[in-house]
Amino acid sequence: MLNFVEEKGIEEWRDSFSPHFPDLHIAAWNDRSVDAASVRYACVWKPERGWLASFPALRVILSEGAGVDHILCDTTLPRHIPITRMVTSETAARMADYVVMACYMLVRQIPAIVHAQQQQRWDNTLTGRLVSETAIGILGMGQLGSLAAQRLLANGFRVNGWSRSAKTVPGTGCYSGDKGLQALLKQSDIVVNLLPDTVETRGIINDDLLAQLPKGAAVINVGRGHQLQSDALLRGLNSGQIGGAVLDVFPEEPLPADDPLWRHPGVIVTGHVASLISTQAKMQHVIAVIKADRLGEPLPMLYNRERGY
Amino acid sequence: MLNFVEEKGIEEWRDSFSPHFPDLHIAAWNDRSVDAASVRYACVWKPERGWLASFPALRVILSEGAGVDHILCDTTLPRHIPITRMVTSETAARMADYVVMACYMLVRQIPAIVHAQQQQRWDNTLTGRLVSETAIGILGMGQLGSLAAQRLLANGFRVNGWSRSAKTVPGTGCYSGDKGLQALLKQSDIVVNLLPDTVETRGIINDDLLAQLPKGAAVINVGRGHQLQSDALLRGLNSGQIGGAVLDVFPEEPLPADDPLWRHPGVIVTGHVASLISTQAKMQHVIAVIKADRLGEPLPMLYNRERGY
Repeated sequence: MLNFVEEKGIEEWRDSFSPHFPDLHIAAWNDRSVDAASVRYACVWKPERGWLASFPALRVILSEGAGVDHILCDTTLPRHIPITRMVTSETAARMADYVVMACYMLVRQIPAIVHAQQQQRWDNTLTGRLVSETAIGILGMGQLGSLAAQRLLANGFRVNGWSRSAKTVPGTGCYSGDKGLQALLKQSDIVVNLLPDTVETRGIINDDLLAQLPKGAAVINVGRGHQLQSDALLRGLNSGQIGGAVLDVFPEEPLPADDPLWRHPGVIVTGHVASLISTQAKMQHVIAVIKADRLGEPLPMLYNRERGY
Repeated sequence: MLNFVEEKGIEEWRDSFSPHFPDLHIAAWNDRSVDAASVRYACVWKPERGWLASFPALRVILSEGAGVDHILCDTTLPRHIPITRMVTSETAARMADYVVMACYMLVRQIPAIVHAQQQQRWDNTLTGRLVSETAIGILGMGQLGSLAAQRLLANGFRVNGWSRSAKTVPGTGCYSGDKGLQALLKQSDIVVNLLPDTVETRGIINDDLLAQLPKGAAVINVGRGHQLQSDALLRGLNSGQIGGAVLDVFPEEPLPADDPLWRHPGVIVTGHVASLISTQAKMQHVIAVIKADRLGEPLPMLYNRERGY
């Protein structure tokens, strides 16, 4: 028995699954006919508090996203059950697509250009700079950050990465630790946040971090919403220290209609779409996790509670 | 004597030129103290009618842009004087930057996302598609089109090019002729116009061309404004045949404030900035042209009246 959060499209899931697991029944999360004791796998985004704890024979919790904070915040959760993160090759490809796009948009002043367009104002001074003269600093060089780094390099950007443990991606500068962060920031025309969601990374993009960037640098947030302090970003944008921002994640989602980020001329807001993947890619991942569990093999993208990702 | 359209920054030009050509005097276009008979080179964007014809000893006309239509439209122009087009390596790099950016923006539905942002509307259905599943058709595979094609390929786009004479760019499909255009259009998710300004290319992007694209395809115009029929594009956008457009050039510039393109939710308007280059790059090109003329060597980027570019 496998439970899903979405009733929509359940037939498509059943058609895909039955050839692989004829003994598994697929049910929607709100299917009241399901015997809780029969549920072995639960695929979830933001489960109701207590819902996961109601399945005594649960073997694996499959997060529908790259993060797991929306699952861990349920304190009734049995802590021995493995959780997998839904990071697929399509997740990484879509994230790289988004990050490269956002870097290009900031290089060419698209936030200001869009603002001029809203006023029907022709402005041929918004020429931006050359990609080949632009340095990107990526915070978080895991699977997603590394692929984005490679793609940016292929476009002629200079790329540096910062991560907990120093990683080597050919062609990029690799930094770690506090000193490493300072060294990366001072040479980054654009900083991309792709850090995992841990205690240390909450609010990490604050006034102090933004002040270490070159004047007029830009910010891309595709990590977690609460890693970026919105007030600090707005102060930076208004003082000219920050030249623009492309933001996909926010502390509160949907971003409230009265949030000043919506209307700031230096900001492009997207609705947490950077790495949303197709149903097909989700299914392939879920099938891989269940196969691994049944064969006693290591689970793909297993969440590590000690590392925090 | 070398004449320029812009008085602004003339000192910077003089500092750059004097080491190369100590005998050349540089004057602004509106400098009334200049003896017209002494002018040998004129570097111009949109000269007043008759202005170029007023220099009896003019050797070369240096267009400040990639196109020359703004010069040729002066019927008083002496037809024997060579004209050079200002296409530098920076022109091509900036154009490639812009084209790649515009393709990414259209793949990820940025026009619709920006429109949602203007209404403070969160929309997580605007996920677009994968770059790796997107085919670009480039109309015009000269120096600019070829570099853009290579950069798009490096990003994982599929790329086809169409040009007057079939060109071979490794990794791209190459088409020419009417049949070739049809074959390219029907497989292009995004069509990029980089055609030269000739009699045949005026209004080439019309209802008929747009109808040959797959439904929902997108359009990028970085060629000439009058190559795209705005009315046809608006019809395509409103019917859903065209999914979005990024436009940098227009039949009338600045784009008039009451033009419907400014306010269409499927359109991003930029102010003819796709390939504007730095003063430094302009100077290097002008120096190269004058050196070639003085040494009797072929002029770089010489305009060919028969080809029309």
